[in-house]
Amino acid sequence: MDNQGVLIVISGFAGAGKGTVVKRLLEQYDNYAVSVSATTRRPREGEQEGVSYFFKTVEEFEQLIKEEKFIEYARYVDNYYGTPKAFVQEMRDAGRDVILEIEVQGALHVKEQYPDAVLIFVTPPDSQELENRLRGRGTEDEATIAKRMARAYEESFLMKNYDYIVINDKVERCADCIHRIVSSAHASSHENKSFMEKMQNQLEHYAKGAK
Amino acid sequence: MDNQGVLIVISGFAGAGKGTVVKRLLEQYDNYAVSVSATTRRPREGEQEGVSYFFKTVEEFEQLIKEEKFIEYARYVDNYYGTPKAFVQEMRDAGRDVILEIEVQGALHVKEQYPDAVLIFVTPPDSQELENRLRGRGTEDEATIAKRMARAYEESFLMKNYDYIVINDKVERCADCIHRIVSSAHASSHENKSFMEKMQNQLEHYAKGAK
Repeated sequence: MDNQGVLIVISGFAGAGKGTVVKRLLEQYDNYAVSVSATTRRPREGEQEGVSYFFKTVEEFEQLIKEEKFIEYARYVDNYYGTPKAFVQEMRDAGRDVILEIEVQGALHVKEQYPDAVLIFVTPPDSQELENRLRGRGTEDEATIAKRMARAYEESFLMKNYDYIVINDKVERCADCIHRIVSSAHASSHENKSFMEKMQNQLEHYAKGAK
Repeated sequence: MDNQGVLIVISGFAGAGKGTVVKRLLEQYDNYAVSVSATTRRPREGEQEGVSYFFKTVEEFEQLIKEEKFIEYARYVDNYYGTPKAFVQEMRDAGRDVILEIEVQGALHVKEQYPDAVLIFVTPPDSQELENRLRGRGTEDEATIAKRMARAYEESFLMKNYDYIVINDKVERCADCIHRIVSSAHASSHENKSFMEKMQNQLEHYAKGAK
């Protein structure tokens, strides 16, 4: 097994419970790290530089875009959000499996640049459960819920671009499933190139001996 | 999760311990079934039709080839060996994860026809261990061992065509790793097409409601 960590992209419908599942993974296993995004929005109370976000000015952020320092970035409302390449690479080099929790468009950009990234889509078992969870939050009005459900419909057509679909019926089960996927990814042949080379080199003299 | 079983191809160097690992999988878990090959070689004592092999005459076998009834077949020495399509499909339809234990060329043919098949290459941790295991069998003379090691060298160049490389250092660990891979394969998006369609259908009326 080569030593680099796996790049994991987790997306899902708003209300699917991604955040809780990622929290569970971090609590249960010690191989994960979560990518910290860069943003131009102002820090909220209690948010820490390098933990919650890397806070940047618009000028700084646009300079980083020019220098291709982001794996992916997007602009929401008036703020930029991006995934810094260097931060992710450092963690992978240290052997950590790095989780990016990003939306669908960003996820597909990541896959273009990193074909070995493991794309996981987290979904509730059905649409009724999705609606229940959004409503259960108690923070969104009816119009917002309707908008989120309509957006879920659009996103449902992009699920097929993900490598894995994980149904979040129970958080523990969903986290375990993701952990099995990541652990399997370490056995994938593209993660074992140096092992294959080692075997070839070791076996070479037997080939000569047999001739 | 759709209900069809996964098609699993297990190959590996002679001496890698594939047989022991497959035996362990069958003992530990109840989701697996092993494909039974058809062959034109004569039954040996104790071999049972439909358990050890499906025994065929050369005429029968060649007729089945013509009718494209094999997933893959090959001729060794003077005998044909093949994997019957119908048998494998029946077991997958019944929800069993079907293991084909076949050699490298056959495995690559399977992948061409069944791109969703999961190809797993089982290997000892290094070439010395491979040689030790071949020698430990006590059944092969030096010339045969040398030939097997030379063949392993050739096969080592085809490992990269497999989806997964699983190192068989301990049988239990190797079997667990394969089981995680198969269990993850059930979460792959191509195994969840009907779930994705269900979600799209359910979400459609929310899209209309929001307009």
